[in-house]
Amino acid sequence: MAVGETRFPVMPVIEGVRLGTAMAGIKKSGRRDLVVIQVPEGARVAGSFTLNAFCAAPVSVAKASLAACQARGEGPRLLVINTGNANAGTGEIGLRDAHATCAELARLAGVPADSVLPFSTGVIGEPLPMERLLAGLAPALDSLAEDSEAWRHAGEGILTTDTRPKGASVELELGDRKVTINGISKGSGMIKPNMATMLAFVATDAAIEQPLLDSLLRETVERSFNCISVDGDTSTNDACMLIATGRGATLTSDEEIVIFRNGLQRVMTELAQAIVRDGEGATKFVTLQVQGAASREEALEVGFTVAHSPLVKTALFASDANWGRILAAVGRAPVSDFDVSRVTIDLGDVRLVENGGRANGYTEEQGSRIMREEEITIRIDLGRGEESATVWTTDLSQEYVSINADYRS
Amino acid sequence: MAVGETRFPVMPVIEGVRLGTAMAGIKKSGRRDLVVIQVPEGARVAGSFTLNAFCAAPVSVAKASLAACQARGEGPRLLVINTGNANAGTGEIGLRDAHATCAELARLAGVPADSVLPFSTGVIGEPLPMERLLAGLAPALDSLAEDSEAWRHAGEGILTTDTRPKGASVELELGDRKVTINGISKGSGMIKPNMATMLAFVATDAAIEQPLLDSLLRETVERSFNCISVDGDTSTNDACMLIATGRGATLTSDEEIVIFRNGLQRVMTELAQAIVRDGEGATKFVTLQVQGAASREEALEVGFTVAHSPLVKTALFASDANWGRILAAVGRAPVSDFDVSRVTIDLGDVRLVENGGRANGYTEEQGSRIMREEEITIRIDLGRGEESATVWTTDLSQEYVSINADYRS
Repeated sequence: MAVGETRFPVMPVIEGVRLGTAMAGIKKSGRRDLVVIQVPEGARVAGSFTLNAFCAAPVSVAKASLAACQARGEGPRLLVINTGNANAGTGEIGLRDAHATCAELARLAGVPADSVLPFSTGVIGEPLPMERLLAGLAPALDSLAEDSEAWRHAGEGILTTDTRPKGASVELELGDRKVTINGISKGSGMIKPNMATMLAFVATDAAIEQPLLDSLLRETVERSFNCISVDGDTSTNDACMLIATGRGATLTSDEEIVIFRNGLQRVMTELAQAIVRDGEGATKFVTLQVQGAASREEALEVGFTVAHSPLVKTALFASDANWGRILAAVGRAPVSDFDVSRVTIDLGDVRLVENGGRANGYTEEQGSRIMREEEITIRIDLGRGEESATVWTTDLSQEYVSINADYRS
Repeated sequence: MAVGETRFPVMPVIEGVRLGTAMAGIKKSGRRDLVVIQVPEGARVAGSFTLNAFCAAPVSVAKASLAACQARGEGPRLLVINTGNANAGTGEIGLRDAHATCAELARLAGVPADSVLPFSTGVIGEPLPMERLLAGLAPALDSLAEDSEAWRHAGEGILTTDTRPKGASVELELGDRKVTINGISKGSGMIKPNMATMLAFVATDAAIEQPLLDSLLRETVERSFNCISVDGDTSTNDACMLIATGRGATLTSDEEIVIFRNGLQRVMTELAQAIVRDGEGATKFVTLQVQGAASREEALEVGFTVAHSPLVKTALFASDANWGRILAAVGRAPVSDFDVSRVTIDLGDVRLVENGGRANGYTEEQGSRIMREEEITIRIDLGRGEESATVWTTDLSQEYVSINADYRS
């Protein structure tokens, strides 16, 4: 199941960013499961990784190698992504395999080993099938290309149980110059069989120095991938990479930086929302707008408390305007000195809650009309301040349980 | 569905504690839905209530009246509990109805209005059916009795969608004297249609002064009702009341206080576990023992993070020894400077995880053997310190989703 349309867009060429794929038979034959992304010399690359303490071997290696490249004032030259196996919970063997993968690809491409960053997604705790993986590297390199089809094939090559590839692209005018941003992502929310991963790879031709690139990634991930949840499980392998080739326009003013950041935010948000729309068993796409908060952190706490409530999620699945469950979830959010008499909750354009109870004049019919829709917005005003946050989530269906219970069974 | 046996025990008489019930037609006809518990003069009563900011009207009234009684050096004289309607999210009308219920029962019984504490459980956001509720008070009073049947009828009268009544009782030897502790509870975990409530009423004939009674309740609830979860939703109406009539033995030494506290802990834990065993759609009873923690808070964080992970819960439902999901849930728990290489995870008597990955010699067969059992213990050692905590939870089944999605639909 998946909610709404997320057509894979036509991707403009970003000169020097070349993508190759192979069918290495890691996942299953006849399916792209190995992806190589080539980054041109002189590019700058920023990375954002999972905070899970049991982070996977490729995450440890990618973080260390990225730091080494940046210390040399360089970007990495190659990213290698395999699906079908997360290489997580694999201890020493996992680290050895991740290093071996990078070393072999570096040898084939004639670059330093630490210029190659590894990424894996799939089953936790199984050793990587190194023979098949290594055998797939050469064909993946041979297929490197810059065109839109290469982007789409890469988008398909990083999927696990996703039902569709996820891509986003924008072209921005900076005065008389143009800048392009392309991105692909995978994952069905933070929650997948065996914690398979949220991965995103975004590239631009803009020229951006490392410190600015790092902060742009941090800011835009904070308001996109860090604001989605299917149930709050955080993968051992999550990663989002941002590549700036520097072959295109340079951001020359604060105004141009703002234009670029807004465009980047659009790409990141589209990719993040595509993950929620493809959430396991999802039948609804839910936007939780929390406003009137004393701080953004507080707004996020309330948003995620509601987003993670199985009672709210099952009511959404049932198209049941069960406002009491939303009220109760808001009420248990960790907010200090919470005066609930000032809270208002709106479902679409219908006022559900005010003055600590059901809104005057609210009728079941009004609520049910909104709940039957496939895309639902819940607005929660805490009446405590000026801060706000938006969280995107799904409903909870029997199919979700089936997918995760039947997996491996 | 419910896991294991929880037979309602034979309850010894606790002199002066009398229970009455009525079929007021609040829930459905032919079903006990109104309960009155009479507390003898001179008794001491301690209460523990929900932390949900949207706490229900009866909770606000019960807290205020209990404080008023204690300020007078008295206990309340009557507790009145209705099921079928939570009187939550009902604003001013809800407070008025809760007060009116207490006032009418106080009038019938000839006690001050604030000597009556109200409790409600059921649907959120609907006004109480006052006419039927008030009409049921006299018959409930007329049926007051001390015997075991009265306790069982009260245990049945406070249920909502529970599949069975929940009771526990212990008799303790204090030197040559005896002390009795009886308790009843309701709820299917913290999660029910419309957040119906966890309620527990425990009585003893022991003579215990208010400060000690308060701390005994706090300590034992902390290690029982506050350690269970079906999914972490916290009700607007949760309450646990502890009554000490003072007509029996006095606790005369620290040793006797320890004997009593251990007995009280046994009753509280049995009542709390009975709620988990009756969890919606539950097919497994899961004990999460977290040890080697730097603090009890940290141990609880890890325990609840695992207990709330839908990936772990669906794997338990599937009897799938999917240790990667447990490892990943532990890894995302909010623990600072978390060295996962020191973590060990045992499933029953089988070592699943050590040195950051799958334990040497672990086989799928070993894990599956344990996972097929109805009662499962998962032991997580963080290798960071001496503190520990135990959390009890259930699995997550399609039936859980059906129960909560179909409700009201």
